[in-house]
Amino acid sequence: MSQFFKNLTTRKVEINSLLCIGLDPDPTKLPQILANDPDPVFSFNREIIDATHHLAACYKPQIAYYSASGREDTLLATIEYAKSKQVPVLLDAKRGDIGSTAEMYAEELFTRFGADAVTLNPYMGLDAMQPFLDYKEKGIYILCRTSNPGGSDLQNLVLDNGDTVYQHVAKLAVSEWNNNRNVGLVVGATRPEEIKDIRQIAGVMDFLLPGVGAQGADVEALMANGVGGGMTINSSRAIIYASSESDFAAAANQVAENTRAEINRHQPSF
Amino acid sequence: MSQFFKNLTTRKVEINSLLCIGLDPDPTKLPQILANDPDPVFSFNREIIDATHHLAACYKPQIAYYSASGREDTLLATIEYAKSKQVPVLLDAKRGDIGSTAEMYAEELFTRFGADAVTLNPYMGLDAMQPFLDYKEKGIYILCRTSNPGGSDLQNLVLDNGDTVYQHVAKLAVSEWNNNRNVGLVVGATRPEEIKDIRQIAGVMDFLLPGVGAQGADVEALMANGVGGGMTINSSRAIIYASSESDFAAAANQVAENTRAEINRHQPSF
Repeated sequence: MSQFFKNLTTRKVEINSLLCIGLDPDPTKLPQILANDPDPVFSFNREIIDATHHLAACYKPQIAYYSASGREDTLLATIEYAKSKQVPVLLDAKRGDIGSTAEMYAEELFTRFGADAVTLNPYMGLDAMQPFLDYKEKGIYILCRTSNPGGSDLQNLVLDNGDTVYQHVAKLAVSEWNNNRNVGLVVGATRPEEIKDIRQIAGVMDFLLPGVGAQGADVEALMANGVGGGMTINSSRAIIYASSESDFAAAANQVAENTRAEINRHQPSF
Repeated sequence: MSQFFKNLTTRKVEINSLLCIGLDPDPTKLPQILANDPDPVFSFNREIIDATHHLAACYKPQIAYYSASGREDTLLATIEYAKSKQVPVLLDAKRGDIGSTAEMYAEELFTRFGADAVTLNPYMGLDAMQPFLDYKEKGIYILCRTSNPGGSDLQNLVLDNGDTVYQHVAKLAVSEWNNNRNVGLVVGATRPEEIKDIRQIAGVMDFLLPGVGAQGADVEALMANGVGGGMTINSSRAIIYASSESDFAAAANQVAENTRAEINRHQPSF
């Protein structure tokens, strides 16, 4: 198992939490109290991290929320700050390109930004993912079944052998792509029956499950169906935007506490 | 037809060229003569553009070659320089994410960097592409059948109705995704029989065809099979790395001339 997955697993047990907190701050939606801050996005993230790091199995910044407005330095500072609190960082970027370009993307995410784990898009196949998979100690979460409405457009197509595309991706992840034991799958938390289906294929493999909170996933159903392997359950907007007032960090702490408690209420053990 | 596709079509006729030149400069592989340049990547690109813009229907920078080493400013300067020569710019980024994040990516590519067109990954379906498709005057090239070896891993899977996944993507692009007439398809130039197949589905839709040059596509075969609609034929490394000496720009000009001539030799008319 890669160092990332070892660290993540250890941390989940130590802090009794499967919660991943998404750091996706829209610069136009920050609390008014930060209006005159020289780096409002970093200050926002720092306060969120200070208030929630004891509850976070990992943090998941989404890169577009930084790159849209040229805030690469803020992203780097955020990742470094999260890591200074001993929280692993999964940088959500969903990259995918031919080998020579994928090497550059891997350098961007792992070397420039220091991510411990990333998300990848499998549409271009193995050689587009190989430069990432070669980072043996990192975590590589491959999109399998995503939580958005259009996720079914391609992922739920049925193949001539009866499998769906997402089932086929899960099978390739297990049989072909996980030689370094550094692969996980992105499985939308909003579709419990599909979580169960993918769990049957993927065994103990860790699932990154986005969709709790703003996207409305049913925590009880996802826990019942994801049981049997790793689960890293992401909530972003419901936590970081819990309040738009000066109490935003305390409110984020409260929602994160509640989300962890709800998750833990529905699982027998790690 | 979107303004981008109008401009691209007009330019192809005016300069008698279907050639798209990829600006993917690896900072570690630049000519020695630029070693002491304060911004060697921009200087390299500027010289390539000066030497080739009369041959380029468009330029296609690949964003990872800039973001891997924090060269966002160089990318922006390169795009602005190419546009100052009246050449449209297709920013190759292959993004794909849920709607709220896709809005941020669209802002990154179109607003921050000023791209005229982009590439997108369809694995997450329509709502992940909609924020891009809503830019009615831009060009949105959706990955259909890619030129890399692993391209077949998912794209050539056969569905229960007999279509491959890439055929299904082409059909969706035509029937569901092109309401603003701003969609093109990425079709690897290395697989002539599949180009023909996709042309039959996609009608006159423009194809971005990477794979000429370093990836070894057969220009005669691709021209014969792509006929019947728009073709934008990309070559990157074979042109920009035509020489590693001080004559790199002149050498790029020569290879670009030769590539355009070879393309034109195999087509009857635009």
